[in-house]
Amino acid sequence: MTDTTTDVGGIAADRLRSFIERIERLEEEKKGIQDDIKEIYAEAKGTGFEPKVIRKVISLRKKSKEDRQEEETLLELYKQALGME
Amino acid sequence: MTDTTTDVGGIAADRLRSFIERIERLEEEKKGIQDDIKEIYAEAKGTGFEPKVIRKVISLRKKSKEDRQEEETLLELYKQALGME
Amino acid sequence: MTDTTTDVGGIAADRLRSFIERIERLEEEKKGIQDDIKEIYAEAKGTGFEPKVIRKVISLRKKSKEDRQEEETLLELYKQALGME
Amino acid sequence: MTDTTTDVGGIAADRLRSFIERIERLEEEKKGIQDDIKEIYAEAKGTGFEPKVIRKVISLRKKSKEDRQEEETLLELYKQALGME
Repeated sequence: MTDTTTDVGGIAADRLRSFIERIERLEEEKKGIQDDIKEIYAEAKGTGFEPKVIRKVISLRKKSKEDRQEEETLLELYKQALGME
Repeated sequence: MTDTTTDVGGIAADRLRSFIERIERLEEEKKGIQDDIKEIYAEAKGTGFEPKVIRKVISLRKKSKEDRQEEETLLELYKQALGME
Repeated sequence: MTDTTTDVGGIAADRLRSFIERIERLEEEKKGIQDDIKEIYAEAKGTGFEPKVIRKVISLRKKSKEDRQEEETLLELYKQALGME
Repeated sequence: MTDTTTDVGGIAADRLRSFIERIERLEEEKKGIQDDIKEIYAEAKGTGFEPKVIRKVISLRKKSKEDRQEEETLLELYKQALGME
């Protein structure tokens, strides 16, 4: 039986290469998804929606209704205290 | 023919919802990939590799050999000029 | 007249060192300011204010009243379209 | 004795305003320092230095000589294992 691992300077070269290539593949996939997301925002903008506000809605949807409403109440209070309409 | 679009306050609600749900799905996929990448780094670390150095190697592999070598030459020069060994 | 520049490997070592030390000093100052900002948020929190909402108010204050109101109107519209209260 | 605090909706408006203005002033200072740093990099570039490599040197100077040398040794080992020159 032969050991198929290429040992370079005490390093299991094959394992290292495998880790690196797996990470690179996943990073490429991630990059593809990021591009897809950008395209959807562009498409939404082309349809007349405001990307910035969509982003805000998405971030609000991650919160519970209670947290959201509490934050909105505080925000209104602070704005009022500062004289912002 | 009927228009199936729900119009809320002048907004094509269905379209908006569709954009947002597509983005949320992709963000979830992206999150999954990021977790996978983290796991590979952890696995590599468990095998004895140094994640920080793997990250560096991956960033170097994105550059051409020429750019890489030029940067390394400059780095050595600057370190020498500053008395860093 | 003597040239006081130390030339190391074709590099004006003194100039390089000067650039680097100036950058490092500024980065330290920046770090100090960031710590000060953190402390104020902590102090505000200790007084009963919500740091997250303060952050939001500060970001709103950077916008014109018109931009702010337009974004708020859109946000309400989108939330309504999605059935978010 | 009069209480000079303006109370708006149960909020100590003056305190809130004071926190916010202190943060805004510090953020402005921070922005100024960031601009100064950018200018030094531009000046260094104008003198013939490579900003990217200066950045690298600065990050290396934050580490101990031992850590730096260990990382360099590992990097060389990994590059060799992957056949990168």
